[in-house]
Amino acid sequence: MTDFHFDLHATDGAARTGVLHTGRGDIRTPAFMPVGTAATVKAMMPESVRETGADIILGNTYHLMLRPGAERVAKLGGLHKFAGWERPILTDSGGFQVMSLAKLRKITEEGVRFQSHVDGATFFMSPERSMEIQRLLGSDIQMVLDECPAFGGTEAVIEKSLAMTLRWAKRSKEAFGEQPGRGCFGIVQGGTFAHLRERSALGLKEIGFDGYAVGGLAVGEPQEMMFETLDFTVPHLPADRPRYLMGVGKPSDIVGAVLRGIDMFDCVLPTRSGRNAQAFTWNGTLNLRNARHAEDPGPIDENCRCPACRKFSRAYLHHTVKAQEIIASMLLTWHNLTFYQDLMAGLRGAIAEGRLKEYAAGLPFIAAAHEPADGEPNSGPK
Amino acid sequence: MTDFHFDLHATDGAARTGVLHTGRGDIRTPAFMPVGTAATVKAMMPESVRETGADIILGNTYHLMLRPGAERVAKLGGLHKFAGWERPILTDSGGFQVMSLAKLRKITEEGVRFQSHVDGATFFMSPERSMEIQRLLGSDIQMVLDECPAFGGTEAVIEKSLAMTLRWAKRSKEAFGEQPGRGCFGIVQGGTFAHLRERSALGLKEIGFDGYAVGGLAVGEPQEMMFETLDFTVPHLPADRPRYLMGVGKPSDIVGAVLRGIDMFDCVLPTRSGRNAQAFTWNGTLNLRNARHAEDPGPIDENCRCPACRKFSRAYLHHTVKAQEIIASMLLTWHNLTFYQDLMAGLRGAIAEGRLKEYAAGLPFIAAAHEPADGEPNSGPK
Repeated sequence: MTDFHFDLHATDGAARTGVLHTGRGDIRTPAFMPVGTAATVKAMMPESVRETGADIILGNTYHLMLRPGAERVAKLGGLHKFAGWERPILTDSGGFQVMSLAKLRKITEEGVRFQSHVDGATFFMSPERSMEIQRLLGSDIQMVLDECPAFGGTEAVIEKSLAMTLRWAKRSKEAFGEQPGRGCFGIVQGGTFAHLRERSALGLKEIGFDGYAVGGLAVGEPQEMMFETLDFTVPHLPADRPRYLMGVGKPSDIVGAVLRGIDMFDCVLPTRSGRNAQAFTWNGTLNLRNARHAEDPGPIDENCRCPACRKFSRAYLHHTVKAQEIIASMLLTWHNLTFYQDLMAGLRGAIAEGRLKEYAAGLPFIAAAHEPADGEPNSGPK
Repeated sequence: MTDFHFDLHATDGAARTGVLHTGRGDIRTPAFMPVGTAATVKAMMPESVRETGADIILGNTYHLMLRPGAERVAKLGGLHKFAGWERPILTDSGGFQVMSLAKLRKITEEGVRFQSHVDGATFFMSPERSMEIQRLLGSDIQMVLDECPAFGGTEAVIEKSLAMTLRWAKRSKEAFGEQPGRGCFGIVQGGTFAHLRERSALGLKEIGFDGYAVGGLAVGEPQEMMFETLDFTVPHLPADRPRYLMGVGKPSDIVGAVLRGIDMFDCVLPTRSGRNAQAFTWNGTLNLRNARHAEDPGPIDENCRCPACRKFSRAYLHHTVKAQEIIASMLLTWHNLTFYQDLMAGLRGAIAEGRLKEYAAGLPFIAAAHEPADGEPNSGPK
């Protein structure tokens, strides 16, 4: 069993490239983790996800605990076997989705009581229960339970939340214990307040984690504010541990965050957009529903290696989108995940060669990244 | 370019096995043709359809003429290129679906005027236009336009319809003309009246077709009535041409029809059922939505070669069905098409070895074929 550890191979300014080793395999960083919410990366076969270049996928603890249930997954041999994915899986703590999806939440020092959005059943989630679920699932990277205050909270609110989140982090780490080949990540909170982010980072480092996530971003704030928060947060994170920016993001978000020293990302954007007729390209996004694609015999991207581009025309994608055929979701998801993985490979290569700034500046969708929202390259589904 | 021709390799009673040669490739018979209504076999990549063992797929002229349109498909290089399927395609005439799906139909000697069910636009379909559309699509097997009277029509109604259908068949054949490597099939109508089926077959043989379909069945009649109709229809069809039973059917329908000399089949049952949580097995159907599968670690079928069975448990399929995940449709469609192709391969092998009757009698879902509807093996989606 490989020890869980991070090897830094090269740095370029604040950016880094390396390999995160786990008992289930290696993760090349910077890494993008496709989201496999309910034990499936939607519309994709697991081997196709791997073919895009993904080293790791993400599972959502909240969804999996409700359906099919963590104990059931454990009885069936764990999430990897259940979902047909042998490589690493990161699970979130469930906290973010409990706080955004579940009903009738009551948060106390002990944990969160809530009702399932699926069938209204009542559940209790504590730091200990979150870690127990993630262990039952067999997760390779387990996240501490944190409170996720809404964006725009006052300093007093964020500070109070942060204090409890640090106490929960300590309980989470203790509950994680020792699991060979697996790691436990802390989550830095603190909103957009520099001194609270610093306090959070220091508190987590004192507990000691295998990796450090930055939470509470990608919740509606402007990109500049996200980058600014990274600018004053990342320097407080230990250099020898992986850094994970949760729930991010657009390609230009990822590039900016890699420039600021982030190593890992997850986001539903490539998969959700794929089911919504949107394709990511180096020149920005295309909406395949648009009538201008109806007779276009060319692929989404001449140089893309994905099956949607190698075998099908924009006209076919337009037709199958309009006809609401499942293959449209399959092909566009495949394309978008390929694009994201190719972007990560490009970023890794540029860092290794010490030319990340030039590489980033030369990306067409970055050059145009400050256009107004309507024309914004690589924007999410509206 | 291979001439369009049929080689009979072996017979066993009324049953036959052989190869239908086309300019796009060979079709082993008895053959099952997956339905690719709108230029996609729903929820399947074309190469996956091929992996199941399909030599040919079916396209629906009615759907394709409405969206994306035959002229557009032709401009884009034809249906094969458009849909990413290089092997043979059979297209129906569009008649059956015009008569079942379109609105405000008016049938005259000249043809059918109707409104699209998609956007209400008005179209006119004549035998000549149907053949023109099928040629524009690039279809390898083109079907004549026929009138499809509702099941249970009086003899007088069926007889009148049949007379026009024969005149339309002649016009269709003339419109087909000569197309190297491609064939044109006539369609025997006549309801459940033996003398009308005979008259239809004789009339079509006089015109001369590359193959002969039996139409007007699988429209709600009992299986016995379908078999009886085949018993008095098939002997009037030329032995040296392929025989195609349109829209059929359940596995037991197919076995019974092969025993009666049918060579080709198409049906939405394996694909539609797959999207509806139903899996075909040698012992009958399974509904994966059923709670009894929730913790079952075994596959649908231990011996099945499809990815759903090799890589996933019934528990996973149950979970993804319940969670309405696309992968459930993908995997169950893949399984069902594999089952259908394995059944066809089994039938072909048994005919070649002169043991079809024993083979058929030994099929578990045949042995139980006369149980009441609820427990009927391999029934369609309810």
